[in-house]
Amino acid sequence: MKYCANCGNPVALRVPEGDDRQRHVCDHCDTVHYQNPRIITGCLPVYEDRVLLCKRAIEPRYGLWTLPAGFMENGETTEQGALRESWEEARATIDISGLYTLFNLPQINQVYLFYRGHLTNLDFGPGLESLEVELFTEQQIPWDELAFPVVNKTLTHYFSDRRENHYPIRSEDLIRRR
Amino acid sequence: MKYCANCGNPVALRVPEGDDRQRHVCDHCDTVHYQNPRIITGCLPVYEDRVLLCKRAIEPRYGLWTLPAGFMENGETTEQGALRESWEEARATIDISGLYTLFNLPQINQVYLFYRGHLTNLDFGPGLESLEVELFTEQQIPWDELAFPVVNKTLTHYFSDRRENHYPIRSEDLIRRR
Repeated sequence: MKYCANCGNPVALRVPEGDDRQRHVCDHCDTVHYQNPRIITGCLPVYEDRVLLCKRAIEPRYGLWTLPAGFMENGETTEQGALRESWEEARATIDISGLYTLFNLPQINQVYLFYRGHLTNLDFGPGLESLEVELFTEQQIPWDELAFPVVNKTLTHYFSDRRENHYPIRSEDLIRRR
Repeated sequence: MKYCANCGNPVALRVPEGDDRQRHVCDHCDTVHYQNPRIITGCLPVYEDRVLLCKRAIEPRYGLWTLPAGFMENGETTEQGALRESWEEARATIDISGLYTLFNLPQINQVYLFYRGHLTNLDFGPGLESLEVELFTEQQIPWDELAFPVVNKTLTHYFSDRRENHYPIRSEDLIRRR
């Protein structure tokens, strides 16, 4: 951020009075511009013994497999966002069972939420951001071609929890060593 | 948002190519400015049979009672944010037990997360944003002077769940009728 979104004048990076961290501050109109983490919300769509994955048609991780997920939008709930992304990326309609995993990625200011859900039918297929959409059994999962660690971890938890038929909500911080 | 934070020129509000909702777009430097929901993270601090509440010294809801919570900052995890807010607002140090409630407030683009936790000692007191900090038994809770519905709901769940000594994670959407 270089300019004030409110008045167009240059902003300064400094600690505002009464605050304890640097913010982008406009000394012309006195606006403090806060920046906060974003939520990525998605689904773990299940059909019988298989889970749905999308092969990414966009960067980053073009060509690798992921669960349908994306940035939560203003005006929607986390569940609505997860369903919207499942439709956009996989043309899939899902009946959500509940929240399943939460991941903090503080280095990139993201919080991931994945909901467990069941595909309501087999009418799915690639949306604009996917090359392919497929169902995989545990043995078929392309473990070496998964796009993100949060996808690997969510799938690993799922296949383990499925043996117990018990799906506690998992919360994990993925701290990257620098 | 009226001006581009990247180049300072006026932005337009329109649907970018390949998108399906209005964004603030800069036609000078081609930046699309996305706006996303923010996370408010906080604690439900417990000491024996009492819970800690803060009397707000700031608007909105000046003078009403709340659980320590605030906007999650870049670079931290949801738990770290909850602990930071508990320190800032109540000078309280807390041992977190786990995530407890998640609330969607889509009308104001907020997602609330509250963590259950235990006060590690009784050395607490008002931070800059609080007038008072006190411990309350279930009978003492000032139900008519709580600052936010999410606080009321989290406390109600807690006292109910405490009878069973079982604290499932609660997820709820607070949709305001217009």
